[in-house]
Amino acid sequence: MVFALDSRLRQDSHLIGRNQHALLLMMNDCRYPWFIVVPQRANVSEWFDLSQEEQVSLHLDCVRLGQCVQNAFACEKINIAALGNIVRQMHVHVVGRNTGDVAWPGPVWGHSPAIGYNDSQRDARRVALFEQPELPFTPI
Amino acid sequence: MVFALDSRLRQDSHLIGRNQHALLLMMNDCRYPWFIVVPQRANVSEWFDLSQEEQVSLHLDCVRLGQCVQNAFACEKINIAALGNIVRQMHVHVVGRNTGDVAWPGPVWGHSPAIGYNDSQRDARRVALFEQPELPFTPI
Repeated sequence: MVFALDSRLRQDSHLIGRNQHALLLMMNDCRYPWFIVVPQRANVSEWFDLSQEEQVSLHLDCVRLGQCVQNAFACEKINIAALGNIVRQMHVHVVGRNTGDVAWPGPVWGHSPAIGYNDSQRDARRVALFEQPELPFTPI
Repeated sequence: MVFALDSRLRQDSHLIGRNQHALLLMMNDCRYPWFIVVPQRANVSEWFDLSQEEQVSLHLDCVRLGQCVQNAFACEKINIAALGNIVRQMHVHVVGRNTGDVAWPGPVWGHSPAIGYNDSQRDARRVALFEQPELPFTPI
């Protein structure tokens, strides 16, 4: 079976980057710097469905992304999570959090409907992320 | 600075296991098989505060724990997450989820007050987990 990005993920986010193994999405919710990493592997829903080598490379990419999110957006805490209760295609959330964001200190998932970006907000956030030299993704 | 388990984590959970690098806690909430892994390192709150070697070993331990939780409790989905918005000491949640659990399909964090185990429930859950031969922790 060939990998195809889940339709719900595609609908809720912007595809902004990729590397050899994974896609980088930015959630269309301007309230948080919220990114999602999707390994390009079909039929994977759990971390342990990946090989150990894939588990390591995907995790290190997510942690580096988290560091870049903190550097780019001066976040107070980075949340890194693979849930997948609704969308079963394996994906990892990397979210920059701050005291005073609408869901703080609770989780962002299921809190309230997203507020989408306008074009200039979206571009500004994307550019700020890709200015981070350690980011393990190239822009699309 | 010497590592000491955060008081909130200690209060909300049972310390049930350990390995060379980390402690294994079981949340005192009988509604989910909910475990927490805490690396025994002082002053660490983010994944990227750990060395790359520590990031890899901790992550692989959490993924193996997730597989054991699925095997032991026949869960539909495993949630693995490092949030830390409230408790800043680095800790990783590994939670077995099922259609029909009280928070499904939303996240467990912040959903509703915990319902603690009675002694026999707690022992049964702990024993079932430690029966998994791949579990990367030994009982305390």
